[in-house]
Amino acid sequence: MRTTVIGLGLIGGSIAIDLRKAGVATHLTGVDLNADHTTQALELGLVDEIKSLEEAALDADLIITAIPVNAIRTVLLKLLDLISKDTIIIDTGSTKASICKAVAEHPKRSQFIAAHPLAGTENSGPNAAFSGLFINKTNIICEKEKSSAKALTVADQLFEALQMRTIFMDPIEHDKHVAYVSHLSHVSAFLLGQTVLDIEKDEKNIFNLAGSGFASTVRLAKSSPDMWAPIFEQNAEYLSQALLEYIMHLQKFQYHLMKRDVKELHNIMTNANHIRAVLEGIELKQPKQEVVK
Amino acid sequence: MRTTVIGLGLIGGSIAIDLRKAGVATHLTGVDLNADHTTQALELGLVDEIKSLEEAALDADLIITAIPVNAIRTVLLKLLDLISKDTIIIDTGSTKASICKAVAEHPKRSQFIAAHPLAGTENSGPNAAFSGLFINKTNIICEKEKSSAKALTVADQLFEALQMRTIFMDPIEHDKHVAYVSHLSHVSAFLLGQTVLDIEKDEKNIFNLAGSGFASTVRLAKSSPDMWAPIFEQNAEYLSQALLEYIMHLQKFQYHLMKRDVKELHNIMTNANHIRAVLEGIELKQPKQEVVK
Repeated sequence: MRTTVIGLGLIGGSIAIDLRKAGVATHLTGVDLNADHTTQALELGLVDEIKSLEEAALDADLIITAIPVNAIRTVLLKLLDLISKDTIIIDTGSTKASICKAVAEHPKRSQFIAAHPLAGTENSGPNAAFSGLFINKTNIICEKEKSSAKALTVADQLFEALQMRTIFMDPIEHDKHVAYVSHLSHVSAFLLGQTVLDIEKDEKNIFNLAGSGFASTVRLAKSSPDMWAPIFEQNAEYLSQALLEYIMHLQKFQYHLMKRDVKELHNIMTNANHIRAVLEGIELKQPKQEVVK
Repeated sequence: MRTTVIGLGLIGGSIAIDLRKAGVATHLTGVDLNADHTTQALELGLVDEIKSLEEAALDADLIITAIPVNAIRTVLLKLLDLISKDTIIIDTGSTKASICKAVAEHPKRSQFIAAHPLAGTENSGPNAAFSGLFINKTNIICEKEKSSAKALTVADQLFEALQMRTIFMDPIEHDKHVAYVSHLSHVSAFLLGQTVLDIEKDEKNIFNLAGSGFASTVRLAKSSPDMWAPIFEQNAEYLSQALLEYIMHLQKFQYHLMKRDVKELHNIMTNANHIRAVLEGIELKQPKQEVVK
């Protein structure tokens, strides 16, 4: 398939690499507003050529959008207006409710797949892209019933090439669950980083005292604000709920701490330990980085 | 040196392995109240024999305590009463102010080193012990001036064998800094795990939606409540301050989120990104696990 990738960052770039590898993409066109990104994407061989959005839309069997979620709605509506009846568009954004709503009434809605391949690292840009990013991870498709059989077949081909498992979800349910399981982790890491930087004016102390535990907990604080600010904005309602729950748990913990109620602190931690079983499942489904790089 | 290790968990066990490897310990005696741990420690060859605390105290050049911090004060005072004038005791606990205070007036105070080798994993018990746990990590010695020259020489030998860098700190400063840089990360991870488990009653959703980002942020929620509850209790004042700062940052973020103030959210995240430089330093100082196992 002649494939256009709009947004040549970690997600778009990594998809391009694996679609070419799997033979699903026979020709790859890239679109990106950032001139550095287009230059890098060509140099890295992620895509064969760079075009404008308008040109690229007319010359593709498959269009993949991998751009910040605040830009997706406008770009999608423009693309749907432009494309022929044979082109399929697949979005990869991290929020789905507002995007599904934006395209709901478009006459070409059935040529669109609202997807969210759950993968990423704390790095961004074309240089961060690598083969195997998506292996064994979960892809979510929302409003499956609004996409045509052909669009779903193309999506199957795409996500199979990426070696993902696809599940189906209502877009509002999607946004709610990812607020807790993905977006909240990012906020907690950003603000843990902020708290420690605020107090430890001398970064040497952090460097000396921090071990792999701190590094692991705060890792996501390295993530791109350009990407995450729009995600948080679009998922503000559910993320805010998640944050309030988290704050409530932290406050309860602090209350028991001040009361020196060691038994209650112990109980809370023992309950939290149940996450171990879930994490072991996650580790099992993820390949070692060495294998896939 | 004839060496006694009191507490045969991750820390005590890993120290035993590397002291034997380096030739610093010529004979290793283990002490542990948990019969499973003593059996495992013998089977794993961490120590040569098991003795009671009283017997082990009389027959050692060097005693290392690696037990929960709520037990350390009592055990230390007992040990100091028992030992001959030639024996050195080194503690490895994660809080230092109350321990230093407890032994301050003991006539054998100078035979004691108040240390905190900053290392660990989320696993515990003798089976979790491994060679190389401490390589390139930081060891903190508090109240250096209260330990004898001989005790400091023995400590040098020990921490050199573990390949650690030693820095010196006031015990109260120690407790304050580790509250922010280490203990707060643990609390944030425990309660992130708790929040997600609370909301996602169906753990399948967590399993499906969680990626390596969530796994990394919540990893420390697997840590042992038996070990951490006493640490949190002993460091309650400073940890509570750290928690309040963290909660304040989370609340501010939630406020800007509800106002859809994307610019301010972006600013907060951009500031938090500064942690990247610190983390890169931490990664540099830590060897790859493969090399040291």
